[in-house]
Amino acid sequence: MRFDITPYIDMSPAEVRQRIRKGEITFPTAGMCRGYAQANLVILPPEYAADFEEYTRRNPFPCPVLEIIRGTPETHAMGEGGDITTDIPEYFIYRNGVLSEKVNDASAFWKEGYVGFLIGCSFSFEEALMAAGIEVRHIATGRNVPMYKTGIRTVKVGPFEGPMVCSMRPMTPENARRAYEITVQCPNVHGAPVHMGDPAILGVRDIDQPEYGESVEIREGEIPVFWPCGVTPQAAIENAKPPIVITHSPGHMFITDIKNAELNDFLEARKRR
Amino acid sequence: MRFDITPYIDMSPAEVRQRIRKGEITFPTAGMCRGYAQANLVILPPEYAADFEEYTRRNPFPCPVLEIIRGTPETHAMGEGGDITTDIPEYFIYRNGVLSEKVNDASAFWKEGYVGFLIGCSFSFEEALMAAGIEVRHIATGRNVPMYKTGIRTVKVGPFEGPMVCSMRPMTPENARRAYEITVQCPNVHGAPVHMGDPAILGVRDIDQPEYGESVEIREGEIPVFWPCGVTPQAAIENAKPPIVITHSPGHMFITDIKNAELNDFLEARKRR
Repeated sequence: MRFDITPYIDMSPAEVRQRIRKGEITFPTAGMCRGYAQANLVILPPEYAADFEEYTRRNPFPCPVLEIIRGTPETHAMGEGGDITTDIPEYFIYRNGVLSEKVNDASAFWKEGYVGFLIGCSFSFEEALMAAGIEVRHIATGRNVPMYKTGIRTVKVGPFEGPMVCSMRPMTPENARRAYEITVQCPNVHGAPVHMGDPAILGVRDIDQPEYGESVEIREGEIPVFWPCGVTPQAAIENAKPPIVITHSPGHMFITDIKNAELNDFLEARKRR
Repeated sequence: MRFDITPYIDMSPAEVRQRIRKGEITFPTAGMCRGYAQANLVILPPEYAADFEEYTRRNPFPCPVLEIIRGTPETHAMGEGGDITTDIPEYFIYRNGVLSEKVNDASAFWKEGYVGFLIGCSFSFEEALMAAGIEVRHIATGRNVPMYKTGIRTVKVGPFEGPMVCSMRPMTPENARRAYEITVQCPNVHGAPVHMGDPAILGVRDIDQPEYGESVEIREGEIPVFWPCGVTPQAAIENAKPPIVITHSPGHMFITDIKNAELNDFLEARKRR
C-alpha cells in the first residue's frame, strides 16, 4: 500500500490531530508534520499499569516514555488538548492478549482508572538521518517501516516480557556509522542501533518477512541496520494477556507538539526535575 | 605476554592499590579484585579540563565518568585513601599529543590545578558476562583485551575529537544476544555493544591488528562483538595535543572500592542528586 502524505507534511500537529479525530486520515503517519515527534500508545486497565510502568523503566531504549496519561484521555506535555483515544488514525484492541478489533476511534473503550502511555518512536530520529543525507528507504518509498521480533529478550517485570522488536533501515556501512553517531546522542528516543549487518546474528530469521510493517528493498552494498522499536511493549502485552489493552496500530502514531530536535533535551530536563 | 593474576583475584582493592604503589604489580589488572570496578585515568592541566569534562558528557558511552579529582590526587567516591598518581601499575605521559614516557609512579608529574578523571571500564561488565556463562576469551587466556579505532566519530568538544575506540570479545551469536541483554542494563559503564559481526562495517580494517591491547582468537562459529571503550578519550587527547597529559597505560587500571554489580546504580543515584 502507498499513501499520499504530501498534504500533511507541513501541517501543524494540532491540525493533523483534528483531521484524524474527524476520520479524514486513517493511514500511517510517517512523514507527517515534519519536525514533530510522533509517539506509540499503550492504554492499560489500572491493575496492570504499575508493572507496565516499571517495564518501560527497565527497558528504556525500546520503551522511552514521553507522557503518562491518567484521569481523562487528554494529553498535556506532549500536546495540550490532544486526546489519546481519538487522535490516532487506527487503534488495535487486544482482549486477553489476542487482537480482537481494529478501530479508528477508541473513545468508547476508555474507562475510569485507565492509564495511557505515550512512547517514543523511531520517526523521531529519521528526520535527523535524512538531514544528514542518509536516505530512509521506507519513507522514500511511501511504506511503513519493517519491524522484527529479535532474539534479544527484554527485562521481565510482572507479566510483561518478550523479545525486543527492532525497526530496520537499509544503508551503506559508511552511512550506518554516521547513523550510529547521530542516534547515540538521543538516548531518550531509542538511542543507537542494536545491530548493523547479518540479521541472523540478531535472531531475525527472514529479513523479507517482518513481523510488523512492510518489507523494504536492501540494495547491493547495503546492510540492514536495526534500532530498538516502540512496538516492543506490544509484544510484551501479547504475552501478559491483560483482559483489555488499547494500542496504536503499528505505524499509525500520535503526533506530538514537541519537535524531534527538542525531544531528547525535553525528556532529559524532565528526568532531572 | 601472560601474567599470573591468581594471587590478586580475591584481594581487596585497598590492598592491591597498596601493592601497586609499592611497585609489586606492574602488569594489566584484568581479573584482579573480583567483583570490584576498575577505571581508566586521564589527568589534564587546568586549561584543558573543562572542555574534556564536556567531551565526556557528550560521549557518555565510551567516556563514563566515575569521579573527578581536583586539588590533591586523592580519590574519595571511588576509593577513600587512593591516589591516582601512584595506584596504577603503569602510566603513559603524553607531551603535545605524543607518548613520551612510560612510568610506574606518576606522582612527580602532578601539579597545582591539575584535574583527574576516573572513567568506567569494560572490565565492569565482563564479570556479569562470565556469571552468565559467557567465556571472556582474553581473561581466559591471560591477555589484555583487543581495542580498535573504529570509523565511528565521537562528538567534538573544543580540541577533543577522534574515533570511538571499541574493545572486542569473540562469542557465538547466541551469546552476543545474551551479552546485549546484560550490558544494555548498564548505561553508565559503556552500555550495549556498538556492533556484532563483520568488523569492516564498523570501519575496523584488520581484526588481527588491534590499535591497543592484544589480538585474541576468534573460533569457528564465533563473531566479534564490539563495545565502547574507555581508551576513546586517549585517542581524543592524541588529537588535542595538550602540553602534558597523564593516563593509565591501556589495560593497567585504577581498582575502585565499588562493586561492579553496584556501580551502575551508584552512578544513577548520583546523577539524580
